[in-house]
Amino acid sequence: MIRYPAGTKPKRVQSIPGQLASSRPYSSVGRGMTLEKDINETNQYYNETLRALVFKKPTPVNIVHVEYPQRSAAVIREAYFQKASTVDYSGVYQGKALEFEAKETRSKTNFPLDNFHAHQIEHLRKALYHGAIAFVIVRFTSLEKTYWLDACHVIEHYRKQAEGGRKSIPLSCFQKKGYEIPISYGASVDYLQVIDQLLFSSETIETIETVIENHRHI
Amino acid sequence: MIRYPAGTKPKRVQSIPGQLASSRPYSSVGRGMTLEKDINETNQYYNETLRALVFKKPTPVNIVHVEYPQRSAAVIREAYFQKASTVDYSGVYQGKALEFEAKETRSKTNFPLDNFHAHQIEHLRKALYHGAIAFVIVRFTSLEKTYWLDACHVIEHYRKQAEGGRKSIPLSCFQKKGYEIPISYGASVDYLQVIDQLLFSSETIETIETVIENHRHI
Repeated sequence: MIRYPAGTKPKRVQSIPGQLASSRPYSSVGRGMTLEKDINETNQYYNETLRALVFKKPTPVNIVHVEYPQRSAAVIREAYFQKASTVDYSGVYQGKALEFEAKETRSKTNFPLDNFHAHQIEHLRKALYHGAIAFVIVRFTSLEKTYWLDACHVIEHYRKQAEGGRKSIPLSCFQKKGYEIPISYGASVDYLQVIDQLLFSSETIETIETVIENHRHI
Repeated sequence: MIRYPAGTKPKRVQSIPGQLASSRPYSSVGRGMTLEKDINETNQYYNETLRALVFKKPTPVNIVHVEYPQRSAAVIREAYFQKASTVDYSGVYQGKALEFEAKETRSKTNFPLDNFHAHQIEHLRKALYHGAIAFVIVRFTSLEKTYWLDACHVIEHYRKQAEGGRKSIPLSCFQKKGYEIPISYGASVDYLQVIDQLLFSSETIETIETVIENHRHI
């Protein structure tokens, strides 16, 4: 269940997790919504052009009470948001499984790790272990830059944090170890371009295989 | 939105789509729930033993109204069930993407095709096209048999139906072209055993590749 800290309680309707915000793109309410919209549109484009099959998982909801009015649709009258136990996006690309999460931050210098739940990190770790292409897409909204970062780096920072290390991933990590995601016609977050580069470069294939190998020791 | 036909309106609580039924395993209300429970437990076992990472997608819900009571969790007060646009299960196995749907039937002779929505078939078709291992798990509850069937056969029967063919897949198709799913320790629907057989038999690899090749002409 989502319990909003005092003072951050979002307004109604626009603020529903997993739904697209309409107007206020970078308010605390709509945070993450613009990137989500861009990724959904990109996925739709990939889908229509048969590049890949990627979809956003529905928001997990714990349903408590449902009414069945006569001659009309069942209405859920009491339900609660559940914490996501996986990541938001799954897909299939050239036979490979894709698993990724997308996040925005207004920070200009780092990405706070508290954007992730522990079980999302665990999911990414297992996805890597099983050989999926697992990654995060992070948008630094103030810098207007969107990065692709292999999940292994996020997992590593998360582990270090648990051992008393820094609570965020510095921008420099995205710049050095990640890839800036280009905008292409039809795909405003063309992350498959990054994956193509990685898949078809023998150097990076080696890196990925080392990464996967390392993550086999889960 | 789910509009239940007259007389089939499910009872409250036990009948929520995507939730596990507790007691009545094969009633029209709980239909599909026992197989779902078995598959969820099997997936949990696969997850814990690091065999694969497979998860059920949350029930898609269209949220209309949310209340935010002070000092407690947000409550969804009006929401509707949406038709699934994908299949119920996704996963990662040895780097490969898995996409599948699970269904039960009480018929002893065939599996009615109206158990699928057109967009689920479309999803399976695209999953195959992109190289996923796409399949269905069908349990004939009266026969106490559970079959694994490559999605290509479901798609083929669906296409024939649209052209005026039969409205169901005969049991013989499951027996000849599918595989009976064994029960193993910890995995009451051990579908990965079937996939292992297919992946490691050179004969079937050829078949799968032909199937994938055929489905590239989407």
